[in-house]
Amino acid sequence: MASCGAVGITPQQFESLQNRLAGPRRAASPVPGSVLGTAILARGTILGIDPSLRGTGFGVVRLVKSRPELVAHGTIACRPTWERSRCLARISQVIRELLKKHSPDVCVIESLFYAQNFQTALIMGEARGASLAAIAEAGIEIYEIAPRKVKQAIVGHGAAQKLAVAKMVQRLLGLAEPPAPDAADALALALAFAQEQRRYSLKPPKRI
Amino acid sequence: MASCGAVGITPQQFESLQNRLAGPRRAASPVPGSVLGTAILARGTILGIDPSLRGTGFGVVRLVKSRPELVAHGTIACRPTWERSRCLARISQVIRELLKKHSPDVCVIESLFYAQNFQTALIMGEARGASLAAIAEAGIEIYEIAPRKVKQAIVGHGAAQKLAVAKMVQRLLGLAEPPAPDAADALALALAFAQEQRRYSLKPPKRI
Repeated sequence: MASCGAVGITPQQFESLQNRLAGPRRAASPVPGSVLGTAILARGTILGIDPSLRGTGFGVVRLVKSRPELVAHGTIACRPTWERSRCLARISQVIRELLKKHSPDVCVIESLFYAQNFQTALIMGEARGASLAAIAEAGIEIYEIAPRKVKQAIVGHGAAQKLAVAKMVQRLLGLAEPPAPDAADALALALAFAQEQRRYSLKPPKRI
Repeated sequence: MASCGAVGITPQQFESLQNRLAGPRRAASPVPGSVLGTAILARGTILGIDPSLRGTGFGVVRLVKSRPELVAHGTIACRPTWERSRCLARISQVIRELLKKHSPDVCVIESLFYAQNFQTALIMGEARGASLAAIAEAGIEIYEIAPRKVKQAIVGHGAAQKLAVAKMVQRLLGLAEPPAPDAADALALALAFAQEQRRYSLKPPKRI
């Protein structure tokens, strides 16, 4: 408390300041053990989607007794020779089949703030549009989480590599091997959403 | 031919040069009267789509005895308070209803090369994705035409204003008043596509 006196604030003010400083950091940093093998609030089925024209990743996670269990994961692969519209139709179809088969309660997608160029952004948007329309038509709520937040929640820091995410997803779900990158990203979204549900956050997943 | 001699080329070479120079200009410039009240090759129903999250324009044109006739036009309006995913679901639904009602043979959409920023490109992409997936799932071929080319075909120059396009669409289809801007753009796409079908072009509409 010597330092408090030195800058002329009371212990109460110092404590309040500490709380204010710690608040946002607490919200942004991972909560160790919150996904890793310990309880996750609520139950239900979460569908994570990582849309892309040629390789949309998907991951379905069910919370059983508050623990995440893998239901399904994979990639909607579209050949490079296929026309764009054919890929979009395929994405739509497969997602509708997934919804029918697994009846998710909620869907989670990555929020995006960057693309290499305009054409990339447009094509990414098209893949997202095909996915989101199919999910929204089924009446399922869709939430968006920032990529950094997903990495923070799963690996522990926002700049984690794809492989690190895949390995952590493997560990969290007790899989024999890491999922393919697109599917791993989708599963990471579902797991991060589950984690977000059980704690206070300054930036909760945004409904879109 | 004096100038030919001056630069050291034969009359044949000069003629060939003239043809090469004239070629692209011929292809890019409007063909007067090709839509305006004269015959258009082939028959069938063309659906033009101008996707946007809050106001997707659509226009259905049928070629009857090689002349374009209006079948339907309108805007898929989505309120500003609606979540993005709700708008995408609405776009998908309405387009599916249009396909069922009018059974178009082909669909035409604008190609895009510019947006104000990344978020705009992404949202435009999402609206396109929702539209294109619904159309492609119905097995309908989709073509893309550049905005400049549509304006050239309809108004006569590539930098035409929206109102000029709407007025020309009104005239071409013999309407009592100009269609709303989004619907006019969609109808212009359908009319430009019809026009493109009947002539040689260096850049025909691209299938996507």
